[in-house]
Amino acid sequence: MAIADALSLLLGADRIDTTAAALTQHSRGESYAAGVMPEVVVYPQSTDEVSKVLRFATERGVPVTPVAANSSLEGHTVPVAGGISLDLGRLDRVLESRPEDLLIVVQPAITYPRVNEHVRRHGLFFPIDPGAHASIGGMVSTNASGTAAVRYGTTGDYVLALEVVTPTGEVLRLGNRARKSASGYDLCALFTGAEGTLGVITEVTLRLVGLPEAAAAARLPFPDAYSATSFVTRLIQAGVPVARCELIDPISIRAVNAYSGTAFPEEMTIFLEFHGNPAGIAAEVEIARELAADAGATAFEAATDAGERARLWEARHTMLFAANAAHPGLDSIITDVAVPISELPAAVASAMADCAEHGLDVHVVGHVGDGNFHLTLYVADAAERALAQGVVDRMTHRALDVGGTATGEHGVGLRKLKYMEREHGEALGLMQTIKATLDPAGIMNPGKKLPVRAPR
Amino acid sequence: MAIADALSLLLGADRIDTTAAALTQHSRGESYAAGVMPEVVVYPQSTDEVSKVLRFATERGVPVTPVAANSSLEGHTVPVAGGISLDLGRLDRVLESRPEDLLIVVQPAITYPRVNEHVRRHGLFFPIDPGAHASIGGMVSTNASGTAAVRYGTTGDYVLALEVVTPTGEVLRLGNRARKSASGYDLCALFTGAEGTLGVITEVTLRLVGLPEAAAAARLPFPDAYSATSFVTRLIQAGVPVARCELIDPISIRAVNAYSGTAFPEEMTIFLEFHGNPAGIAAEVEIARELAADAGATAFEAATDAGERARLWEARHTMLFAANAAHPGLDSIITDVAVPISELPAAVASAMADCAEHGLDVHVVGHVGDGNFHLTLYVADAAERALAQGVVDRMTHRALDVGGTATGEHGVGLRKLKYMEREHGEALGLMQTIKATLDPAGIMNPGKKLPVRAPR
Repeated sequence: MAIADALSLLLGADRIDTTAAALTQHSRGESYAAGVMPEVVVYPQSTDEVSKVLRFATERGVPVTPVAANSSLEGHTVPVAGGISLDLGRLDRVLESRPEDLLIVVQPAITYPRVNEHVRRHGLFFPIDPGAHASIGGMVSTNASGTAAVRYGTTGDYVLALEVVTPTGEVLRLGNRARKSASGYDLCALFTGAEGTLGVITEVTLRLVGLPEAAAAARLPFPDAYSATSFVTRLIQAGVPVARCELIDPISIRAVNAYSGTAFPEEMTIFLEFHGNPAGIAAEVEIARELAADAGATAFEAATDAGERARLWEARHTMLFAANAAHPGLDSIITDVAVPISELPAAVASAMADCAEHGLDVHVVGHVGDGNFHLTLYVADAAERALAQGVVDRMTHRALDVGGTATGEHGVGLRKLKYMEREHGEALGLMQTIKATLDPAGIMNPGKKLPVRAPR
Repeated sequence: MAIADALSLLLGADRIDTTAAALTQHSRGESYAAGVMPEVVVYPQSTDEVSKVLRFATERGVPVTPVAANSSLEGHTVPVAGGISLDLGRLDRVLESRPEDLLIVVQPAITYPRVNEHVRRHGLFFPIDPGAHASIGGMVSTNASGTAAVRYGTTGDYVLALEVVTPTGEVLRLGNRARKSASGYDLCALFTGAEGTLGVITEVTLRLVGLPEAAAAARLPFPDAYSATSFVTRLIQAGVPVARCELIDPISIRAVNAYSGTAFPEEMTIFLEFHGNPAGIAAEVEIARELAADAGATAFEAATDAGERARLWEARHTMLFAANAAHPGLDSIITDVAVPISELPAAVASAMADCAEHGLDVHVVGHVGDGNFHLTLYVADAAERALAQGVVDRMTHRALDVGGTATGEHGVGLRKLKYMEREHGEALGLMQTIKATLDPAGIMNPGKKLPVRAPR
């Protein structure tokens, strides 16, 4: 029996879609042009249905590619081996709210802004902010982070418990509701960042934190990438608990000015945010101001009022739209690496010089307090795509040269696979062994996260 | 050939000890009375020697129990199956210091106070403070935490990279030097808290944080456990980033007064510490003062001067010595659980009532900001030991009833094994599969962390 017919019998026809529209929609992700059609899209409505699909897929050897918000930038949701696109979009509810324990239990397809809408009334928030309207399940699967990681860490730091369905259809409950534990192996951490290659996450228990009493924002232009990133390195080394610390390059500010009709100085600019009580953050802002002056900042604008803070950060928030608008009709390649904090100035400067040398338009945005930064390269044709890929390769190898990582937060997906052997060495073999143990039929998100093990 | 002779040939005679003194010294841990002699104690001096020992042990099927500072409270270092006690004490050096990257690379037997001595000159510290002079390797292996976890998290949060030797002798390098990564499976997290059952940690790269500019301390007596822990729950819910938050019971304060000649009020007492800039922590102290008054605190003493802070916390620091001195010649059983923060008042009150009902002397100390607390029970004979074990059983099952964990920070070792099936359910099977995959001969720290899998 055809896969779609068998799944229709198993779950009911309303869970299955084989229309061209659905298959096309599920063929590709953001910033990843080369789509592949799945054979069928399945919309499970319960953990039990996910289990039935995976058991079926393992028995029949059918590939399964999970997807929810589909905001991945590295091709995670492209069903490169065909088979089932497992769309978890109907599993998007809050299952339990426990503000008194600073936690919430949600299904995987709920987005993080919706979690925050839900918990804000209790004075709480989930502090991970990757941008896009990412789903919690996707964020756990890539260990997403974003602008607030410098203070609050990554998604994995907020995963107290998971329900997962293994590739053979077994339902496992991992973790607990205490704020720390030394019991058992940390299987939550194994599934966090596994990019759907070890199973499907069907429930997430998230730790929450108290909304800060007050916030401050600052914007600091610098004459060049080196002075801007050197300031960041010193700020982090000084132990200032900055809540966000972002970098944007002059070309992007120019794009923002063109897009929004603003007149921000077109310089390498650092955006800061501080969280705490009013007296504490006022003192932190002053330390940042002194360090910025030492590092050569050409200005230092700061504000605590919400409207003023939004104005100071406007260029950061508008940047992606402005950059896209400046390159109509072009494909973008967005990449990310992370390096030890002292290596950040050289890493950013080298990447920008490499782009300039190859005549490539590049936008640089960095969660620079983590040593993590992104390039957005716009390409018009295959030749430019090849040049851009060269830039990405050299930037990634330079990051690995200095003890960094091929991806700080976007995950491996398809495009970073080729760096895994160099980054992980012998440990890659253990990862492949774990994968083979959990997924003996190799059905879960094949082609992502780990290169296929070479025959021995 | 006998094991000791074979190892002597392999590594040299000076790495081997089979004297009665060495075997006895390596037969037991702290707070765990029932010792078992190893056949031989081995002192490796390099990663390569650890690899040789493990390869030999896997080939010959010889059990290996790793040990460094031997400060575990749950019998982790007791070589219950005999064989090799692998004493890593000679691997205690700083390998590389990178203050500009806020990291340090150390060998496993270095203690955390020595790490802090080393990095303090750079204005940095490693903020995990479990008490005792624990080794970094042991702290990683149990995901230790302690008094500062409420602010700074657990040891695992500071592990950037590990070198580990697997049971078959393979040397793996895990992780990297960036502050975050989405590359590969998180194998550092798998080895963190594995209690030496998956291999031996031979190198740890630790993330460091900046020393706070200022600190404040406070001491708050309460009329009972319920009001004290309710205050803590509200303080955490209010999002005050308190750096330490400890509870001590009146019996322990009485023991301190007897031991030190002090006159601290013999009440249920909360000890707080705040880290930050002077203006910020002054504001935090005021919020804590208001919440304490609401919760019924009978006093609120606070200080910022170092000498005054030490005086305020003296009872906390002296407590273990004072409690031991109050029970000369008795064995102690120290246990720990963690519960969701709102369940803390009921959990502490129930445990104390249970002890009272059974006529057992109990000292309660809690890292209560995490929902984590300890009982120290002193027992004179087998009958009292059985009564104490009953208290531990009921306390642990109550913690699991409310979604907590059988151990917040001490680890499973030998004594918590019996709760693992209930706590982890089907996930225990996956843990056992991972263990069997990495350690096919079952040599690594047998009898700890996971119950042996039942034959199918």
